[in-house]
Amino acid sequence: MKIVSGGVCAAKGFRAAGIHCGIRHNRSKKDLALIVSEKRASAAAVYTTNLVKGAPLVLTKEHLADGMAQAVICNSGNANTCNANGLEIARGMAELAAGELGIAPEDVVVASTGVIGQPLSLDPIREKIGELAEALSGQGSGDACEAIMTTDTRRKEVAVEFTLGGKVCRLGGIAKGSGMIHPNMATMLVFITTDAAISPAMLQKALRGDVASTFNMISVDGDTSTNDMVTVLANGLAGNPEIRAEGPDLEVFMQALNTVTVALCRRIAGDGEGATKLLECAVTGAKDEKAAKTAAKSVVCSNLTKAAMFGADANWGRVLCALGYSGADLDVHKVGVRFRSAAGTVEVCRDGAGVPFSEEEAKKVLTESEIEILVSLGDGDASATAWGCDLTYDYVKINGDYRT
Amino acid sequence: MKIVSGGVCAAKGFRAAGIHCGIRHNRSKKDLALIVSEKRASAAAVYTTNLVKGAPLVLTKEHLADGMAQAVICNSGNANTCNANGLEIARGMAELAAGELGIAPEDVVVASTGVIGQPLSLDPIREKIGELAEALSGQGSGDACEAIMTTDTRRKEVAVEFTLGGKVCRLGGIAKGSGMIHPNMATMLVFITTDAAISPAMLQKALRGDVASTFNMISVDGDTSTNDMVTVLANGLAGNPEIRAEGPDLEVFMQALNTVTVALCRRIAGDGEGATKLLECAVTGAKDEKAAKTAAKSVVCSNLTKAAMFGADANWGRVLCALGYSGADLDVHKVGVRFRSAAGTVEVCRDGAGVPFSEEEAKKVLTESEIEILVSLGDGDASATAWGCDLTYDYVKINGDYRT
Repeated sequence: MKIVSGGVCAAKGFRAAGIHCGIRHNRSKKDLALIVSEKRASAAAVYTTNLVKGAPLVLTKEHLADGMAQAVICNSGNANTCNANGLEIARGMAELAAGELGIAPEDVVVASTGVIGQPLSLDPIREKIGELAEALSGQGSGDACEAIMTTDTRRKEVAVEFTLGGKVCRLGGIAKGSGMIHPNMATMLVFITTDAAISPAMLQKALRGDVASTFNMISVDGDTSTNDMVTVLANGLAGNPEIRAEGPDLEVFMQALNTVTVALCRRIAGDGEGATKLLECAVTGAKDEKAAKTAAKSVVCSNLTKAAMFGADANWGRVLCALGYSGADLDVHKVGVRFRSAAGTVEVCRDGAGVPFSEEEAKKVLTESEIEILVSLGDGDASATAWGCDLTYDYVKINGDYRT
Repeated sequence: MKIVSGGVCAAKGFRAAGIHCGIRHNRSKKDLALIVSEKRASAAAVYTTNLVKGAPLVLTKEHLADGMAQAVICNSGNANTCNANGLEIARGMAELAAGELGIAPEDVVVASTGVIGQPLSLDPIREKIGELAEALSGQGSGDACEAIMTTDTRRKEVAVEFTLGGKVCRLGGIAKGSGMIHPNMATMLVFITTDAAISPAMLQKALRGDVASTFNMISVDGDTSTNDMVTVLANGLAGNPEIRAEGPDLEVFMQALNTVTVALCRRIAGDGEGATKLLECAVTGAKDEKAAKTAAKSVVCSNLTKAAMFGADANWGRVLCALGYSGADLDVHKVGVRFRSAAGTVEVCRDGAGVPFSEEEAKKVLTESEIEILVSLGDGDASATAWGCDLTYDYVKINGDYRT
């Protein structure tokens, strides 16, 4: 498994582009992205579990009913959610893209991200769709990635190379997500492409299996978005024998997928709104996987723990508190906690009680930009990892005045 | 039902005191409180559901097994939780108080609040217990209230007068709680006293019924504390016929209790760490009470909604988002949202979609210090209210560096 460049254009037969079309007022911010496969591709997706669902998700679900798609159009600056004409607008976006690309509207995935409850006009998209299609290229992943960003401060792109049936395959993705991040059975916006040949059913199986331990284990602020979605397009151009059933090939494919999704998870959490630090909570020794996941997620979701990490304060009592209310089946008298970073490791709690440690050393460990909170439950063999970020002044600033 | 002054000393036969004994370094901050009834009283309590439970709670549960108590001792500055010798220290506190008051240690309620995981020394308590007992008075409620405060900025005291069996009764309480506030089946520290005569079983019933719609409906930061507890002492000195069964008298008593607990809830939420605003989310038209409660609590817990309220931003999409992921059984296409305050009311959403409103007027409404978020689900007759506060820079500041 080799990391390669190229994002969603790393795999054969994919082109992408991102431009400013005018949905946003700021002309220097791209706001419309397009990703296209040379041929129709197996397609899989998972969606938010929020009862309030963006119109683009409703349409995309309809379009992916046959497990096939060929293009993705996505705008930022407006979520096209809670609008009376939302579905009509989403359909219009699919038709504009399809018309320009000469494909069926039903083969277009539509996504939108931004403010909820403000009508989205098709005019700027109609006006610039030709320019967008012309900009499509094998080097366009970065532009597409920029065009889907909202409060993100960094591009989130990653791709890997691997081998299936003797053929070199690639799989790459782009993601956006910085606030309203607390995916539940689905995730923020992530678009993944691959040239591996895999049936729609196996692709959906691989994706669903993967998100449970990747995107569903991130939290920035506990708010599950209305527009979360991950899609994968697999066009088969790598020429490997199509994966149609479980077996070693599916395993390899899932490893490739997992490598890309974990990397994107870390980038999303580390670029959480206002964040200065990536938090990774690794729980080991849990009774079962559910307990491990519940415990890990509770720690990265705790506002108090997140604020303590911002202040580089080794306040491990807050970690224990979060474990205690998590609902996970655990014995508090067996819990151990260590903080680890590039600056070292410091043990702060053993058997549910504090152990003496150097505050100075702990401060050094917690001043790094990537902090691991290592929790051992001493109660079994299961483990899980969750990703989050610190809670900062800037999170409040960004969200106290998002719309203006 | 008349609001009266006096807090926990409003009812006949109760005295209280609060002093600085030295658990805290800051000499101007009281850190030890005592509340005493002239005679043994019916006692009831509810406790945190956090698996990590403070040693004082464990001991108090033991002491209240017979439904009777006579005094409460409570320190701030140290939670006496996750310490190897925690139970021994809590027992020591009960013995010191009992010795000084000439009562049985088993009749003492013990509580502690503050940092988790730092050993608590009995020395300052032993040294000052005499001074504390000497300070006991019928005017001591305010001092006791101050002595249990941590990051609270305001005293939280309230009392009411009511009539039972022709006798004038009083019931009053004090509370502390500002951060780590997200009670679940229990609450932060609240001590309530009454001179009404009521059996331990009926008192426990009244308390358990009440907290489900009061303290359990507050959230400051989503973190359920390890040391939450509400206790009520009822010494019967009002001379009413003892309440021993359900009936009109219990109804009146529960009304009195509810008047005091709702007032304390509003004060706790409004004095949330860093808060500039009290948020009250009133959900009506829900299918059932569970849906109403779940929906209301989800809104006041949403970091994004809380930050928007801090910025006086009428970003109602975040309210819909929070309703959508709450897990409550609701139809998003029927949801209506209004913001209300002393400055007026503004409707922002009807039937799940935005309605035009004046941003200027909305800003005026949301700039007040008490904001109501009125949610109608249009789906039934059930309703519920939850209390919270805005998310501010100061919350982050307070919690980024709590221990130092």
